[in-house]
Amino acid sequence: MEVGREFTREVGLGGIEALIQLLAKVPGLGPRSARRAALHMLKRRESLMEPLARALREAADNVKTCSVCNNIDTVDPCTICAGTKRDRSQICVVEDIGDLWAMERVVGFRGLYHVLGGTLSALDGIGPEDLNVGGLVERAASEEVKEVILATNATVDGQTTAHYIADRLKDANVIISGLAHGVPVGGELDYLDEGTLSAALKARKPV
Amino acid sequence: MEVGREFTREVGLGGIEALIQLLAKVPGLGPRSARRAALHMLKRRESLMEPLARALREAADNVKTCSVCNNIDTVDPCTICAGTKRDRSQICVVEDIGDLWAMERVVGFRGLYHVLGGTLSALDGIGPEDLNVGGLVERAASEEVKEVILATNATVDGQTTAHYIADRLKDANVIISGLAHGVPVGGELDYLDEGTLSAALKARKPV
Repeated sequence: MEVGREFTREVGLGGIEALIQLLAKVPGLGPRSARRAALHMLKRRESLMEPLARALREAADNVKTCSVCNNIDTVDPCTICAGTKRDRSQICVVEDIGDLWAMERVVGFRGLYHVLGGTLSALDGIGPEDLNVGGLVERAASEEVKEVILATNATVDGQTTAHYIADRLKDANVIISGLAHGVPVGGELDYLDEGTLSAALKARKPV
Repeated sequence: MEVGREFTREVGLGGIEALIQLLAKVPGLGPRSARRAALHMLKRRESLMEPLARALREAADNVKTCSVCNNIDTVDPCTICAGTKRDRSQICVVEDIGDLWAMERVVGFRGLYHVLGGTLSALDGIGPEDLNVGGLVERAASEEVKEVILATNATVDGQTTAHYIADRLKDANVIISGLAHGVPVGGELDYLDEGTLSAALKARKPV
């Protein structure tokens, strides 16, 4: 960041300096692209900069965590938990809100969610008490719920977490399922790692 | 953007939806990274989201164009034009504010600037009257100014513009110079285009 500081001191950007340094903290932007973004926005003050300032302010003021599933929304319970058209018999367990958003883009899934807020990780010192598992066990005990779909990431930590949750849910009267592993749709075998290919082979189906 | 709309309708993101769509317009971010950025900021409301909202608001309210050189700043004339330690005998002519910022990062240049606001371009229908050349001619007429450095980009349009400006300044009592072309410092010959290499050869110097 030496370059950035030097730059700021030299130019004396005032308000723009603070803006660039904050923009550089947004994932996807670095010090260089933050400058470009700031300049772009300064040239589009009414169409982009002011609406963005407003949207950030509104989101910061109004967005809250859903007390049922840990999703974020402007209402609590969130739109999904409160939705009348959702299938209340299925709960899809995801690590993070970003994963929930990814699942929502899947046409077809109409169930509910449960956001863990991370995975078990010995390395990062994240234990069961740091994850939102208790709430899930409670929810799974409800008559309504028939299936819990474990959609944690296919990483070591994700799969460890899935096993742990399956264990915690063994007394609940629910089907516990996981996402299938296999060849990505449109994927080429040549570019696939061995683990995926071997999983896809094991899970092969009659055509 | 079909995907984005579908996604928003399904999730009912409310305020977050508007935020994501605005973030996606920031250069360096697309629809996908805008979601990631929004999520990242929602998790860092006090350390990032609120300060960024404030910084955007302040920049939008306070940043203005310098009436002397067309730079942007919170004051007019800008900090550079008003600077007491700047060398007022040199004016560096650049296409855009981003180029001014790039030049400012160069240790050593302490002169003033003049931002054209673009280049002549027959294709885009940009003529001399669209650029801020008149102001430059006026400034160059001042006793104080000894040298005008043409630092437009090394593109066809940039060089055409430089030639045009040199022509407009021929009656002013100033030295007109341009940036040197050559091998970038740290650059490898093998990766250089022929034009640059040929320019570097022509401009060769005794070691």
